[in-house]
Amino acid sequence: MTLMQQEARETWQRIQQQIDSNGSLYAELAERIRSFDPAFVYIVGRGTSDHAGVFARYLIEVELGVVVAAAAPSVASLFSRQLKLQRALVLLISQSGRSEDILAQARAAKQSGALVVALVNDISSPLAALADYAVPLLAGPEKAVAATKSYLCTLAAILQLVAHWKQDAALLGALTSLPQALQSVLAQPAQLQLPHLQQLRHCVVLGRAFGYAISREIALKIKEVCGIQAEAFSSAEFLHGPVSLLNQPLTLLNVALEDESAGAHQTQITEVKKRGGEVVTLQIALPGIHPRLQPLLLMQRFYLDIEAIAVAMGKNPDAPTGLNKVTITL
Amino acid sequence: MTLMQQEARETWQRIQQQIDSNGSLYAELAERIRSFDPAFVYIVGRGTSDHAGVFARYLIEVELGVVVAAAAPSVASLFSRQLKLQRALVLLISQSGRSEDILAQARAAKQSGALVVALVNDISSPLAALADYAVPLLAGPEKAVAATKSYLCTLAAILQLVAHWKQDAALLGALTSLPQALQSVLAQPAQLQLPHLQQLRHCVVLGRAFGYAISREIALKIKEVCGIQAEAFSSAEFLHGPVSLLNQPLTLLNVALEDESAGAHQTQITEVKKRGGEVVTLQIALPGIHPRLQPLLLMQRFYLDIEAIAVAMGKNPDAPTGLNKVTITL
Repeated sequence: MTLMQQEARETWQRIQQQIDSNGSLYAELAERIRSFDPAFVYIVGRGTSDHAGVFARYLIEVELGVVVAAAAPSVASLFSRQLKLQRALVLLISQSGRSEDILAQARAAKQSGALVVALVNDISSPLAALADYAVPLLAGPEKAVAATKSYLCTLAAILQLVAHWKQDAALLGALTSLPQALQSVLAQPAQLQLPHLQQLRHCVVLGRAFGYAISREIALKIKEVCGIQAEAFSSAEFLHGPVSLLNQPLTLLNVALEDESAGAHQTQITEVKKRGGEVVTLQIALPGIHPRLQPLLLMQRFYLDIEAIAVAMGKNPDAPTGLNKVTITL
Repeated sequence: MTLMQQEARETWQRIQQQIDSNGSLYAELAERIRSFDPAFVYIVGRGTSDHAGVFARYLIEVELGVVVAAAAPSVASLFSRQLKLQRALVLLISQSGRSEDILAQARAAKQSGALVVALVNDISSPLAALADYAVPLLAGPEKAVAATKSYLCTLAAILQLVAHWKQDAALLGALTSLPQALQSVLAQPAQLQLPHLQQLRHCVVLGRAFGYAISREIALKIKEVCGIQAEAFSSAEFLHGPVSLLNQPLTLLNVALEDESAGAHQTQITEVKKRGGEVVTLQIALPGIHPRLQPLLLMQRFYLDIEAIAVAMGKNPDAPTGLNKVTITL
């Protein structure tokens, strides 16, 4: 069994531990956020953590109505501009908590008077020490280069944080069933399979809102472990120009969530099919599941599927060429 | 001559007219923005206008230190969530000023107490009527489906707006020379040429900061008029996973600006070359030009080049299959 598969499979246990351990921390942090009353949220993260930030962006905007901005690290690191963050909740997402550019942003945020919260896997890291609040992701050590459980643990932490911030009893209740739901997905049949990707050099991933958030991570993982240039689009944005790609044969993965976006998204998918796109649908059938939990379940299935496809292609998903676990960027 | 080429070539005149006409409007608007003192900026736009928003995001953050968030239209349209925008400068970018989803966002922003500014080509549009301030882009009628002059006129308006807001004499001075600089680029030799793209089904566009902003528009245009899946990345982000694509032959367009990001960007490009990437560099050599004007000049050259490549490929850049000029999205 590859490390990637092993780590993806233990996600439900790590999230169970996170739920068991972090409850009172979230309650205290949520109280502090409500009294700070941020004018906006500013999210810092790179790679897979950046993609977790896209999920956080939709969740915070949809559930709380607070605008979320994603950090452009170069503004501080290359253009030496200190941003005005005194009314911001700054959310830093990092597994190692040691990337120098993330630390620089945390310091700048502190100096400007922001409320600084770190979601961090290594709670003994300098980032955890710097932040006003450090939320341990409790993903355990992640040895595979392609992140899986750490991404899902980050999403689970974001869901907890927002559910407590909003004091959303329905979401808080639903979260207690997340580990079991993730576990049940392990036994479900594969959705994405070798024949879907085998011949491809490039493809498209379409989702809307929360579905778009995970589409970004799906596209990155297909690049990392299969070497296929998968590009994610909001299904709404795709019809504004990229649709020209359908003049040639094109495979599109359809990230189908049963939430408020389902109708509009399906309309776009129908249009794409009408224009000749080869559509592969990724969907989770767990009746009664809270819509905000669905993206995590779909990703859980996808991680297992893409690992199996990479192995079937003769690739080693634990050692994608040219990638290191911790990346330093300036 | 195609409409696309014709419109791209007249950009310098349209921007000259914009500079001649809008000066006092910017001064008044800038005064109003400074007294409103926004906690953040919230930008709304779709397609090419969305890409102009990415440029605005870097410019406002780098020059003014005010955080910029990009709108996710689905939050309002599909999830019915009214965002808290009372401390925001809301910047809506639209050519027609008639897209229903943009109008809905403008109404919601007004209701929430935001300062609402529209950059709009059709000054008689409902969007112009709704906004607190409407800045006419003065691009003239744009008939080609692939936007060119309207994008550059939008970037010029954003530069004017920020230069006045910041009261940046150097940038204000430099802007007076922009039309002439754009005109001089028309006579320069082509950079991107048919052999670079002829055999490709997919490719990558790499830039950093302002270079990344225009990379998004470059990638979209290559999709629209050549049907090639070009994907834009921040050169910093590319090394965090997508670099795995270099296990196979891959062409990368290098958007090289001579600004504060040049050193860090060049380091990443060198790394990409070392790993076997086929790099084509796009660069503008106009000695002494203000760094913030460079992206517009590079785009001016690129628009002419990509139009010529599409024609040489036997495609009609004025009629990309399946695209309409005004796209309605919910």
